[in-house]
Amino acid sequence: MTDLQGQRIVSQLDPDGTLTVSLEDFTLPAPEGRQVVIRVEATPINPSDLGLLFGPADIEKAEFSPGRIVAKMPDPAVRAMAARHGAAMPVGNEGAGTVVAAGDAPEAQALLGKRVTCFPGGMYATLAVADAAMCLELPEGVTAEQGASAFVNPLTALSFTETMRHLGHNALVHTAAASNLGQMLVKICQADGIPLVNIVRNDAQVAILKGIGAEHVVDSSKATFLDDLAAAIGATKATMAFDAIGGGKLVSQILTVMEQVANSGAAYSRYGSNSPKHAFIYGALDLSPTVLTRNFGFSWDVSGWLLTPWMGKLGAEVVEKMRSRVMAELTTTFASSYKARVTLDQALTKEAALEYNARRTGEKYLITP
Amino acid sequence: MTDLQGQRIVSQLDPDGTLTVSLEDFTLPAPEGRQVVIRVEATPINPSDLGLLFGPADIEKAEFSPGRIVAKMPDPAVRAMAARHGAAMPVGNEGAGTVVAAGDAPEAQALLGKRVTCFPGGMYATLAVADAAMCLELPEGVTAEQGASAFVNPLTALSFTETMRHLGHNALVHTAAASNLGQMLVKICQADGIPLVNIVRNDAQVAILKGIGAEHVVDSSKATFLDDLAAAIGATKATMAFDAIGGGKLVSQILTVMEQVANSGAAYSRYGSNSPKHAFIYGALDLSPTVLTRNFGFSWDVSGWLLTPWMGKLGAEVVEKMRSRVMAELTTTFASSYKARVTLDQALTKEAALEYNARRTGEKYLITP
Repeated sequence: MTDLQGQRIVSQLDPDGTLTVSLEDFTLPAPEGRQVVIRVEATPINPSDLGLLFGPADIEKAEFSPGRIVAKMPDPAVRAMAARHGAAMPVGNEGAGTVVAAGDAPEAQALLGKRVTCFPGGMYATLAVADAAMCLELPEGVTAEQGASAFVNPLTALSFTETMRHLGHNALVHTAAASNLGQMLVKICQADGIPLVNIVRNDAQVAILKGIGAEHVVDSSKATFLDDLAAAIGATKATMAFDAIGGGKLVSQILTVMEQVANSGAAYSRYGSNSPKHAFIYGALDLSPTVLTRNFGFSWDVSGWLLTPWMGKLGAEVVEKMRSRVMAELTTTFASSYKARVTLDQALTKEAALEYNARRTGEKYLITP
Repeated sequence: MTDLQGQRIVSQLDPDGTLTVSLEDFTLPAPEGRQVVIRVEATPINPSDLGLLFGPADIEKAEFSPGRIVAKMPDPAVRAMAARHGAAMPVGNEGAGTVVAAGDAPEAQALLGKRVTCFPGGMYATLAVADAAMCLELPEGVTAEQGASAFVNPLTALSFTETMRHLGHNALVHTAAASNLGQMLVKICQADGIPLVNIVRNDAQVAILKGIGAEHVVDSSKATFLDDLAAAIGATKATMAFDAIGGGKLVSQILTVMEQVANSGAAYSRYGSNSPKHAFIYGALDLSPTVLTRNFGFSWDVSGWLLTPWMGKLGAEVVEKMRSRVMAELTTTFASSYKARVTLDQALTKEAALEYNARRTGEKYLITP
């Protein structure tokens, strides 16, 4: 078997704060054992990819040339990312494509010529390597585009409800809820009978969620927001929240309202209610600090949430059930929509980069190498 | 048995924001069943008492008259405390005194004439009622003053190390660490071989803790604070913190340093380390918001911590062990020191109230009714 030549996007941060994101040629060695080589056909730009691709670098003021972006990273981030200094890091968590080469192992050979979806990293490329055991073969009739986002969002949405069950809560609040992920969560909660409060930021997003049948949709841009939130949390008795925004006061406001609901009708306690209130921050759409006013008693937790360690906590059986459900409902519950499709070259133009880096809900990009 | 007449301090918040803290006469009915009536001899003013006594009311500008303080509560607090509007609430969590009346139950009768310590609330009074089963008889030779603080601080300090074990951590960080509680924690950790990082705010507090043999003491007022903290967390590998301050950036800084220590020498991950980092906020010496910069990956928890629900989580066996240890070590590990002793009347003077409400470490007041 000959070497496999391709192109890929890499992101390199140098100690002087220069971030270079560029398209480079590379050569893959022949796959061994369970490895398969995938010709990438569709790969989404998720917020979790943007953290590695650009991080908090100033893309607005970057220099753009064909196949190359050079930007300045703020000093605190340069220091925080010392471990990646000087390394050209491949980007792109997940995607779908066709297996064009495979190692000797039977499970690898079995995928030759098949269309698969996978989550190996380095998918912003014409060719990527994955472990055959971690690939899922796409069902007949499912396109690469339909299968490109089969891991990050679907497993995250399903893990939210499993985390809720794992920790003994019964209803959820979700922010930035009109995202692809948020729409999946609406459908999962409908199917599973889980009360869900969706927080969005404008009328268009309210319309998207109402359009797919969401019952509780609250708009944080409205003057009545806190009252609306109190009514929705009162109706659902939600005590757990998943927040994609991170920065600002929203998490604190959610906990405050949960505490008010828990206290309504109860006797006064200077320490607040004993009702557990748990907010998970799983994203950073707003990179500013999280501000907690702590006017919600002492029975509360605010925690970071990340898919991989939580799948570990939930256990192999639950994860296998989640993966099966994703494949069965890939074009229904777990369908994603994209604002634009770009090639690898186009992804590095100013026009595209500024738009997808804005991380606006409902404006996700798909790379079709 | 005749009625028992006494005096007590009550705190009343009216819907218009007027907070009245006053000394009132009251009459106790004869005790029934397991109830005992205690002639209060010593009761400390803990930060947890100040929340009910004054909360965030403006004591600086209050009107003081003999046995009476009238202050203005800020509007947000007035709304948050709607459940206590109009109620004259007795104050004082814990204290020690002599049992002067008892109900019929044998365990109550057995305490008649005995000196006990207890945690029933309403101890800022000449007489208080408690459940005999919740009273601990003070050992021979232990004074009421020595036994006055046998619950809140000792059980809290012991619960910190039990919470640490319960959640699988091995070393601790503690803030405002020169407090009575902090000194108890130093002694417990010394005895139990638990590495402990103490964060204090000035040289005098460093000296207090060094004087009782604390190994890692870091002064947050120094320019080298973050480096000193990194060295101490690096040496102890502490991954859990208990914070009495609440407001500001300190909790965030602790988590950031824990993450740096976890990452030193590790390969770069855009999501941060998988090392769990847990900060508990158990006090509110600073009432301003908690500000989390979130530059510590996604494996972190910040939680409220309160003694009573955590004793429930730790279980009856652990709690019984803690209570026995407190009684055995009341004048050594769990000795408290007080800056001043005041009567109920004196506690309501401007001079005293301003000083103890400042909640300065090492300036605790004891009421001796």
